[in-house]
Amino acid sequence: MKDINIGLLGAGTVGSGVIKILKDNAEIIKKRLGFNLVLKKIYSRSIRNEIKNDISSITASSYEELLGDDIDIVVELVGGCDFAKDFMFEAIEKKKSIVTANKALLAKYGFEIFSKAFENKVDIGYEAAVAGGIPIIKAIKESLSANNIKSIKAIVNGTCNYILTEMLEKQVPFEEALKDAQDKGFAEADPSFDIGGVDAAHKMAILSSIAFGDNVKDDSVYREGIKGVTLLDIKFADELGYKIKLLGITNLLDDKIDVRVHPTMVKKEDILAKTDGEYNAIKVLSDMADDTVYIGKGAGSLPTASAVVSDIMDIARNIRHNSHLRIPLMSFPFNYVKKRKMVNINDLSMDYYLRFSVADSAGVLSKISGVLGERNISIKSVIQLNKGKDWVPLIVMTHKAKERDIQDSLNIIHKMDIIKDKTLLVRVDDE
Amino acid sequence: MKDINIGLLGAGTVGSGVIKILKDNAEIIKKRLGFNLVLKKIYSRSIRNEIKNDISSITASSYEELLGDDIDIVVELVGGCDFAKDFMFEAIEKKKSIVTANKALLAKYGFEIFSKAFENKVDIGYEAAVAGGIPIIKAIKESLSANNIKSIKAIVNGTCNYILTEMLEKQVPFEEALKDAQDKGFAEADPSFDIGGVDAAHKMAILSSIAFGDNVKDDSVYREGIKGVTLLDIKFADELGYKIKLLGITNLLDDKIDVRVHPTMVKKEDILAKTDGEYNAIKVLSDMADDTVYIGKGAGSLPTASAVVSDIMDIARNIRHNSHLRIPLMSFPFNYVKKRKMVNINDLSMDYYLRFSVADSAGVLSKISGVLGERNISIKSVIQLNKGKDWVPLIVMTHKAKERDIQDSLNIIHKMDIIKDKTLLVRVDDE
Repeated sequence: MKDINIGLLGAGTVGSGVIKILKDNAEIIKKRLGFNLVLKKIYSRSIRNEIKNDISSITASSYEELLGDDIDIVVELVGGCDFAKDFMFEAIEKKKSIVTANKALLAKYGFEIFSKAFENKVDIGYEAAVAGGIPIIKAIKESLSANNIKSIKAIVNGTCNYILTEMLEKQVPFEEALKDAQDKGFAEADPSFDIGGVDAAHKMAILSSIAFGDNVKDDSVYREGIKGVTLLDIKFADELGYKIKLLGITNLLDDKIDVRVHPTMVKKEDILAKTDGEYNAIKVLSDMADDTVYIGKGAGSLPTASAVVSDIMDIARNIRHNSHLRIPLMSFPFNYVKKRKMVNINDLSMDYYLRFSVADSAGVLSKISGVLGERNISIKSVIQLNKGKDWVPLIVMTHKAKERDIQDSLNIIHKMDIIKDKTLLVRVDDE
Repeated sequence: MKDINIGLLGAGTVGSGVIKILKDNAEIIKKRLGFNLVLKKIYSRSIRNEIKNDISSITASSYEELLGDDIDIVVELVGGCDFAKDFMFEAIEKKKSIVTANKALLAKYGFEIFSKAFENKVDIGYEAAVAGGIPIIKAIKESLSANNIKSIKAIVNGTCNYILTEMLEKQVPFEEALKDAQDKGFAEADPSFDIGGVDAAHKMAILSSIAFGDNVKDDSVYREGIKGVTLLDIKFADELGYKIKLLGITNLLDDKIDVRVHPTMVKKEDILAKTDGEYNAIKVLSDMADDTVYIGKGAGSLPTASAVVSDIMDIARNIRHNSHLRIPLMSFPFNYVKKRKMVNINDLSMDYYLRFSVADSAGVLSKISGVLGERNISIKSVIQLNKGKDWVPLIVMTHKAKERDIQDSLNIIHKMDIIKDKTLLVRVDDE
């Protein structure tokens, strides 16, 4: 059968992984497909020295060369939302199917891009956009297609998971674990996208959209990062039977979507609590298959590139069988994609872990519990450390309470002179 | 678009789950597909009273009715190898695509059935044959298609996993945990297929075949069941930092296949050790995606039926897009399916846990360690219990040793009069 020609935009971390897989695994790819995938053109603003020679014969001098008649599938790995977006629209107009790992772009403009692709009868593969080498997009779009998906709970940021794991295992503070993650390549020089929860929010927007048949945009995902979590909190969580994880959570509640990313206390027995280091884990609860969990490396050159190439192969098969759009791009056909209301986090109820920094003086607990009690927030347990300092941590675990009442209480408590620092609030997963 | 008509053979546990999903989730299935899946005919030797009325209008009086022109896809859920095999061959000749959960049949006659299907240009869906609701077949055939798969380690029998978990958590003996599993519906009245490792061997044969592009038959899978594992062993494993799991293991070693099912000591930190109760877990190590793990309910009416219906939807899409055989039936086209040699377990080397039942007398350890020492088997640790009985357990953990040397040693040791009972050997996963 005729070869399929690939045009690659971007030869960074993931792009160079794609180049490697297409070269090193060309034989097994051809065996499985019955034809070759040929990397025909690469356009990248900068190309690493170690691959420069290898690809010099196929280096393009402009991105337009990737959109010529000799290219069947375009792979977009430049990231970002400006050039990448324009490029994808142009590629779609030229009837190119696209494979991308661009979560930020899809979380913002996914619906528009997919609609345009549908009009032009081309496919968009985006397995690599969520959780790298873990085939969660295909699982949701195809393997769970007979199910109503009810919720997803997920560790989708390996940087945060690595940092939180290191803090517990090595008993080191946040900054030290972050530095270690940067040294090992698990965190960027500027880690704010990861530790602020932005990256996880992008992924949860995409997962929510295809799980429920919705158009969830990144900015409607409630998000909190892990920066406020200290070693002390991780130790307390451990003693209380929990691990603190940055969880992405999305629930369909009475046809509204509750989607959020925040540090969460997860019971140690939960498989998500057991997923450590740079690993990602995604737990999908659906009405028939019950819960299924997908674990693997959520980032890294080769795992992510593995997802890119499997998408290329999928689309190549569609080209050869003339079966484009065999699976709806957003898991549901567009006429069924809704735009549901979002649940306001203030309307949710759960258990809370609150770490106050208080003055080491009598009556503090009574003042704090008084404010909580006025809002019917019932306290499950209290741990008060007396370290002989002026300011000491006071841990309060609550029973189920409304987020709004908790936030109102904290606002009042924060105005009291017994409080030193911002209180850390960690929501408890009460599954 | 035109409806797709289904003929169902077998309305037992999984079959009634399929009936329920096609009815209860008809709306979401139609949304995703753009057309209906219509359950047109059911043939089953016995039909449960609770669904008899529901399906009376579509009950067929002979299996031949499932093979008429009005049926597009046939679902085989009777199990067994005799009638099911004849039925599938007949269905394929009549150009019906088939969905099946029949692992025993595929582990024995998979290659023949898939070849016949290929000749007749029909699809065979068998996601439900391995690990129920976990989409491991699709993951291997599609999501990891850019990878060379190196090995799979898996818990693929929920009955055994439930029993082993109960023994540890409730500190009960094997028989009590088995009875509990039977009461809860996690074990059959005759559990020998599960606890003997036969069921797991079927699944490992199928997984090995599609992972490596081979034709691995069930009888070439080395197998040991969990019957010899006592609470004592589970306690010792726990103390030593391990859990005992019935693992299915398949490795590609120098173009030979090492595939086996046996109780295995797995380090507690391993995600497989953390998968408890009736859950299954499959860890795939591949060259590019690294390790990915898939966890979920490996059995049960609805999880398994969820896999059946997702296969039906996949094939229905192939029918509507005229894209039959879009993915090779065995993951590789037949001309690449090899018949490799099997690794003899005697040629493998690993660490061993040996529990001897010995006379409570002086010199016992020296006799045993003498025999082991003659074969250069080096001992890592020894635990000797002195319970004041005539016969006491003696635990020996070895360093890496050759299986053949271990077996030879045991043969000699078993002839000594210091030995009471058969020695339990548990292989240690040294990953």
